[in-house]
Amino acid sequence: MILETIVTTQDTDGSVHIAPMGVHQWGNGIIILPFRPSRTLDNLLASQVAVVNAVDDVRIFAGCLTGRRNWPLVPAEKVAGRRLRDALAHTELTLVRREDDPIRPKLYFRPVHQVNHAPFAGFNRAQFAVLEAAILVSRLDRLPWEKIESELAYLKIGLEKTAGPREYEAWGWLMEKIEYFKQLQGVT
Amino acid sequence: MILETIVTTQDTDGSVHIAPMGVHQWGNGIIILPFRPSRTLDNLLASQVAVVNAVDDVRIFAGCLTGRRNWPLVPAEKVAGRRLRDALAHTELTLVRREDDPIRPKLYFRPVHQVNHAPFAGFNRAQFAVLEAAILVSRLDRLPWEKIESELAYLKIGLEKTAGPREYEAWGWLMEKIEYFKQLQGVT
Repeated sequence: MILETIVTTQDTDGSVHIAPMGVHQWGNGIIILPFRPSRTLDNLLASQVAVVNAVDDVRIFAGCLTGRRNWPLVPAEKVAGRRLRDALAHTELTLVRREDDPIRPKLYFRPVHQVNHAPFAGFNRAQFAVLEAAILVSRLDRLPWEKIESELAYLKIGLEKTAGPREYEAWGWLMEKIEYFKQLQGVT
Repeated sequence: MILETIVTTQDTDGSVHIAPMGVHQWGNGIIILPFRPSRTLDNLLASQVAVVNAVDDVRIFAGCLTGRRNWPLVPAEKVAGRRLRDALAHTELTLVRREDDPIRPKLYFRPVHQVNHAPFAGFNRAQFAVLEAAILVSRLDRLPWEKIESELAYLKIGLEKTAGPREYEAWGWLMEKIEYFKQLQGVT
């Protein structure tokens, strides 16, 4: 099972990197498969620690894909790291095993601490629409334009029926990026 | 903003009804718009109380649409009612205002108690796929068959990439119901 979370990592100087990542459940631990090269990979290997944030504020996902990476952080509790201030829950983990790979090394983590900060409010279709649109945005250069447009049209239905202000804001950021990409590509 | 939750209500004899419902946020309260006639509406008016369960087990959504309504319940804490045992969080609310309507009366509720039981694990695209498929299943008699098939094909991609056993089980129940409906309608 893959969970879409925000992984916070830091380098040896304590500089933090915030990245949306689909992490794989592995018993009560997780597997992270960061691309090579990436700051997340460098930080995970240097610190041997990951903080996985479960958030329902989809602006953090859309923000990280559109140059808005400055989300409020607070110190982790048991490991040297940071968590998102607005995480509904977060887990602090340490690296226990590593399978190397030229494209995506497989890093196995065991939890050392988990905190439940705020209640889950229930599913929101607009949040998922934003998440799916964010995945499209991360693949703009690899997907046919027709597929992108038809999926966005579908996702927009659920968005407009159920979104609150945070979801509309996140969606707007993603659509801006898509428009910019279209102009660059000369798509009309 | 609309949240997809499981609303548990009970009649004056204490018999409980479990129903998936999209509830509207209303400040820190909610608005429920149950269809007329429905057990949820009868129970809400008789008891003046609602329990809203935020769950991540999508089998409960798919189950309620496919004749599987027997999910474990435990007593609510401050109101006469029940909550789902496996809710990540639940809110107990009382009816404060009512706007009548021949199709969907609008019932305004204020929270009296909320409990955060278990941490949110993060978004899962398969859970979203099941939820959207459940909405399709609830509208099988009103949607063109082509639209249903093309949306299911799209949703299946995210499902197969990210599902765990609960999501596959829920998806299976919904697909069974769709197959049964197809046979009844003579769709080939």
